[in-house]
Amino acid sequence: MDLPAVFDKYRTEIDTELKSVLVERHSPLYDMMRYHLGWNDEKGKICERPAGKALRPTLCLLACEAVGGEYGRALPAAAALELIHNFSLIHDDIQDNDRKRRHRPTVWAIWGKPQAINAGTAMRILTNVALSRLGELDIPPEKRLLVQQMMDEASLRLIEGQYLDIDYEKRVDITIQNYLQMIGGKTASLIACALEVGALLGTNHKQAINDFHRLGWNLGLSFQIRDDILGTWGDRDVTGKPLAGDIQRRKKTLPVVHALENARNGYKERLVRFYKDGKDNGAVIDILDILNRTGAQSYAQRMNESYCLEARRVLVGLDIKTAARRDFEELINFLEERSF
Amino acid sequence: MDLPAVFDKYRTEIDTELKSVLVERHSPLYDMMRYHLGWNDEKGKICERPAGKALRPTLCLLACEAVGGEYGRALPAAAALELIHNFSLIHDDIQDNDRKRRHRPTVWAIWGKPQAINAGTAMRILTNVALSRLGELDIPPEKRLLVQQMMDEASLRLIEGQYLDIDYEKRVDITIQNYLQMIGGKTASLIACALEVGALLGTNHKQAINDFHRLGWNLGLSFQIRDDILGTWGDRDVTGKPLAGDIQRRKKTLPVVHALENARNGYKERLVRFYKDGKDNGAVIDILDILNRTGAQSYAQRMNESYCLEARRVLVGLDIKTAARRDFEELINFLEERSF
Repeated sequence: MDLPAVFDKYRTEIDTELKSVLVERHSPLYDMMRYHLGWNDEKGKICERPAGKALRPTLCLLACEAVGGEYGRALPAAAALELIHNFSLIHDDIQDNDRKRRHRPTVWAIWGKPQAINAGTAMRILTNVALSRLGELDIPPEKRLLVQQMMDEASLRLIEGQYLDIDYEKRVDITIQNYLQMIGGKTASLIACALEVGALLGTNHKQAINDFHRLGWNLGLSFQIRDDILGTWGDRDVTGKPLAGDIQRRKKTLPVVHALENARNGYKERLVRFYKDGKDNGAVIDILDILNRTGAQSYAQRMNESYCLEARRVLVGLDIKTAARRDFEELINFLEERSF
Repeated sequence: MDLPAVFDKYRTEIDTELKSVLVERHSPLYDMMRYHLGWNDEKGKICERPAGKALRPTLCLLACEAVGGEYGRALPAAAALELIHNFSLIHDDIQDNDRKRRHRPTVWAIWGKPQAINAGTAMRILTNVALSRLGELDIPPEKRLLVQQMMDEASLRLIEGQYLDIDYEKRVDITIQNYLQMIGGKTASLIACALEVGALLGTNHKQAINDFHRLGWNLGLSFQIRDDILGTWGDRDVTGKPLAGDIQRRKKTLPVVHALENARNGYKERLVRFYKDGKDNGAVIDILDILNRTGAQSYAQRMNESYCLEARRVLVGLDIKTAARRDFEELINFLEERSF
């Protein structure tokens, strides 16, 4: 399965915009960011590593076009969204003790945790710097302040979600409701923000802007649930993530939450023991076995599909350009079945 | 030596403004912040612990009044400055492995480093939220965006300084120039920003705004150098910091940089050994002895005084209210001799 064509459409311009945010910054702090973003190797030499999918910026630009705006006017916001996403990855790798991302050592694995904290926080501040370019595109100051506010609130939701994600690691009483609160924060908020801000920069039509937020919220939940499936059963050569990594890190993914609610007797006890003591790594294979017995994967996939269905329903109600509608449909199909 | 009266003047209003930023925020993430700010104990119960001096917000409000503005219009900026300062303290404690601050356990010592990273970063984002209140005070959007930009650039300089501070720990080749670059970033930038933003919110007079930046820059350098002296020779009951803590943490403070440049023969070798190997904690007393022999304390104090002198020179050239001038004079006298 390939990435839908819409991901190629804006890619070069997103990268150019992103690079312009860092271009005049010379502290080694920014070299850590350039490394993380795949532009430099760890010595600071230019290289071109495949970065992420740039999902959030792509969604932002697509929403702007869909409502009849010029996507070029949303580029600074697109860059800001990618910076928010990537600051959270830099900190997430520290918090989870992950040494690999995108087939390379993580920032902290090279520069140490204290400096990686600096790189992540500074990257979040660069979000604001990226947004300042909206001024050059004659976006009115009131709208610029509104965009800033949306990004700030989405970032706070993201960190609140990260808080829960870490908090849940030690707990075995997580319900589906708790789970949805966590992924709503850590993933859906920013994806919803991407679409909302994109629409806002293309139109003044309040209802449309709200609908895009709702579309993004559903896409975001679907995205994270598919991520959970890939983090447990994904092919590590394709995902670039460790095998059954989410189990090893005791993450309360949807399959695990489902299994904790549905496993009985010995299996339930086995799960609780594994998720409570935090050692016992040899047991990963047992946990996979229990997840399979409780039908956790197909449950999670059904949930993913239900959010995709809801996203399609919102999409149908939107008054948007035909080409953009087709791109969104392809994108939803991708989120439903993706393997990377 | 008491805190100058100007610190009392705005204290209540600064606290009220700060509390209003966090009031509707209910994730446990914000409880960590309330704890750090001295409003809650670690269980979330309200308490009133002495917080910091609120130097940056006080300077901001004083500058606003000095140029003829109403200080109430700068309160959101004052709160934002205090949040920037405190986010950096939360992260700094993680990076330096410090378990105590203001006579209490640090945030990470209670909630762990992963969650403390979240608390610090979210607090930096709340800076932007605090600034949004400038809109309610009818500050024009263009000026609000300018304030935001000044705070963002000062925050980046602060983190660049933090980067150097950590980087220097492993190095013994730090010059006075390197040192000034580091403290310019980690300390003087934000203090300069406090005065600049305060002036900007009280006047449109460009030269005055620039002069306040220059005043703040000198105050900031003086402040950090006195901090270095207190971090080495300060009374821990008064400072709330560990005895000779800066030596134990291998910080390249001004006294140490001076000693590394001026110690000879055996003393020089002894210093290099201590600052290179990072173990050998019993040696702190030897290092203090070498600092005393090389006259490091009086050198640092002379440097502090030279920045105070420069600050007084800038102050003389400012066309400001008499009461404000007196407050600044008292403040400079305090920074020159303070013991806490």
